[in-house]
This record gives sequence, structure tokens and C-alpha cells, in this order.
Amino acid sequence: MKTQATRDKLIQIGAELIAEQGFNATGINAVLSRAGVPKGSFYHYFSSKEDFGLAVIDAFAEQYDARLVAILQAPDQPPLARLRRYFEAGRIDMHSCDHARGCLIGNLGQELSSRSEAFRARLDQVFRQWERHLVVCLEEARAAGEVAEDLDAERLAGFILAGWQGAMLRAKTTKSLAPMEAFEQVLFHELLGREVEPRKTAAGAAPETP
Amino acid sequence: MKTQATRDKLIQIGAELIAEQGFNATGINAVLSRAGVPKGSFYHYFSSKEDFGLAVIDAFAEQYDARLVAILQAPDQPPLARLRRYFEAGRIDMHSCDHARGCLIGNLGQELSSRSEAFRARLDQVFRQWERHLVVCLEEARAAGEVAEDLDAERLAGFILAGWQGAMLRAKTTKSLAPMEAFEQVLFHELLGREVEPRKTAAGAAPETP
Repeated sequence: MKTQATRDKLIQIGAELIAEQGFNATGINAVLSRAGVPKGSFYHYFSSKEDFGLAVIDAFAEQYDARLVAILQAPDQPPLARLRRYFEAGRIDMHSCDHARGCLIGNLGQELSSRSEAFRARLDQVFRQWERHLVVCLEEARAAGEVAEDLDAERLAGFILAGWQGAMLRAKTTKSLAPMEAFEQVLFHELLGREVEPRKTAAGAAPETP
Repeated sequence: MKTQATRDKLIQIGAELIAEQGFNATGINAVLSRAGVPKGSFYHYFSSKEDFGLAVIDAFAEQYDARLVAILQAPDQPPLARLRRYFEAGRIDMHSCDHARGCLIGNLGQELSSRSEAFRARLDQVFRQWERHLVVCLEEARAAGEVAEDLDAERLAGFILAGWQGAMLRAKTTKSLAPMEAFEQVLFHELLGREVEPRKTAAGAAPETP
């Protein structure tokens, strides 16, 4: 039980350090030291640094998935409002770390995809899971008449996931939320907004998209 | 002269190694060894590893900028065809490295933005320069009537740059060009395609976007 608690603590601190500085720059000793765990005991908990990194990804993915489901499947909100909340949550996260961290999965995907097949496959799996949640939300938006009937939910979910990752990268390099706000604006006003316009137009006066 | 040639060689090899494995994982000795330059002579050419990294960014940015201008300002092609060529060139690059490298500037932005203000500022400057080229191309597309008259070229240029970076990240994690193809499809069919439709519609029968 104590072993499990220590392992969890190492994973939690590892996630913080890796999000801040990347996987390669995060030393095992720095993690142990910040956790107050004796040097040399790392291999009692993990078979290798890669094993540790994969455990960090698993723990993060599990926590974040629960959060994503709570936002994107919130039963009391219409689908597009949930999507708005997803972007809002991302902007709040980015602001709260002063544009320093971004997305742990995106950062690791950038850093490790070509260096470790185990990491690449696991990170891809996490991204695909997130895409599934976006697909469900977009399909519900379609069913509710919030977006065009012919909307390709799979393709748009992939587009949103990738675009949002890129917007976070630009937010980090420009130290501003502007790229994330611009992404959301283009998505809602130019893409989703225009997709739904034909039906509004058919019903009568077409409201201007702001 | 010989000093300059050696320095250029170190920069070129540094760019390759950093694109493959990131900045932190690239050791100075590995660069010197691959370049056939004696160990210990690094500080004859660069004052620090950061100084070396910034020189790699400068050299890459200069080369890539010339390439970008040649594509996005090609005088013999209409603006949107040039934009298509820009995406095509990116897909060819990604395919030729088996989805391993992606964009050196994007990779470094992800890895270093929060760790070094010198890197962050320089990378942001490079991204902004690329955005300028995209703005010019989109403004020319607007002037040529290829996109809607009210197209916000600045905002869309930022959206394209960020989205394309995210699409490359997903291409790396999923080891496939599909995310880059999907980005291009959504951009041209859903976003730019729809933007130009109102004018076509006003002129008569509205062609279906494929």
C-alpha cells in the first residue's frame, strides 16, 4: 500500500516535471528528490525510465479522460456549448501555467514519437480516445440540428484535435492565448457557423454571424 | 574561411540531429563526432549550446524562408494553387522522413519555449515571418476573387500555421499523412470553399463542393 502511494507520488511529480521541461530533460534523480524518495530506489517502482514515462502517460490520460467526458458529455448543456467549454478549459489551463506547459500528450508526441515506438503507439492511442469523445459530441450536435446535416464528424474531430494542439504550440511560443482564441473563432464563426447557415437561411432571415 | 565552413557543417549536422531527436537529447559530442571535428573544439565556434541552437534555428529559418517565398509567391500560379503547393511540400517532407521529423521550428517551440526566453522569442519571430508569407498569399487570393471578399487574412494565416503544425504532430504520432490530408481537405472544402460560395451563388447555380 505504501509502495503504491510512493509510486503514485513519483508519477504525479514526474508528470509536472515532464510537462514543464520535457521527458529527456527530466532526470530520475530530480523526480526522486522532489518526491523525498531515497536515490537508488527508482527501480523498485519502475523497470526503466521509459516504463516510468509510460506510467506517467497512463495516469495523465486516465485523469484527463474523466475530465473530458465530464465536459464533452455534460447532460445539461447542448453539444456545441460543451465544445466551447472544452476550449475554455484549455485556455484556462494555458493561462494558469503562464503559457509554459501546454498539453503533456502533445509535448511528448512531439518529443518522443520518432524515438520510441512504445511511446508513439501509446500517445496515438490517447489522441484517438480524445478524438472519439469529440466525434460523439459533434454527432450529437448534428442530431440536435446545431451543425449541418452532412457534417463529417470523424474528419472534423481530427481537424479540431490537431488544430487545437497547434494552437497550444503557438500560444507557448507567442506567450499569449491569442492563437487559441483565433482557432476557436475560426472554427465556430467560419466553419461551424457557416455550416449551419443554410438551414437558418431556409427558415427565414439569416442572422449575421458576429 | 575554413573556420566558417566547419561552423556551417556543425550547424547542418546539428539541424539534422535536433530534428530527429530534439535539442536536449542532442549531445555536442555527437555533433562533433558526426562532423569529424575534434572534441573540445566546440567552443571555438559557439559560446554555448544555446548559442549553437540559435545558430541552427537561424540557418534553418533562412533556408526555409527562401523555399517558402519560392512556393507562396510563385508568379506563374494563382494564389490558392500556391497554398496547395505549400501543403504538398509539407506532406512530401513528412513522407520522406517516414513521419519522424516534422517541423524543426515546431519541435523546438514545443520543447524549448518555456525553458529559454531566447529560444522562445527567436522561434516566435520565425513563425511570425511564415505567417506574413501566408497573409500575403491569402490577400492575393482575395484580390483575385479566389476567396470571399471579407476573408480575414491575418486571422486565417495564424489558423493555418497553427493547424498545420498540429497536423504534423498528429502525423508523427499516428505515423501517417492522414491528419495532414484531413487538414488540407477541411481547409479547402469546408472553409475556403464555403467562403467563396456566396459569390458563386449570386451569379447563378451553386456548384456542390466535392
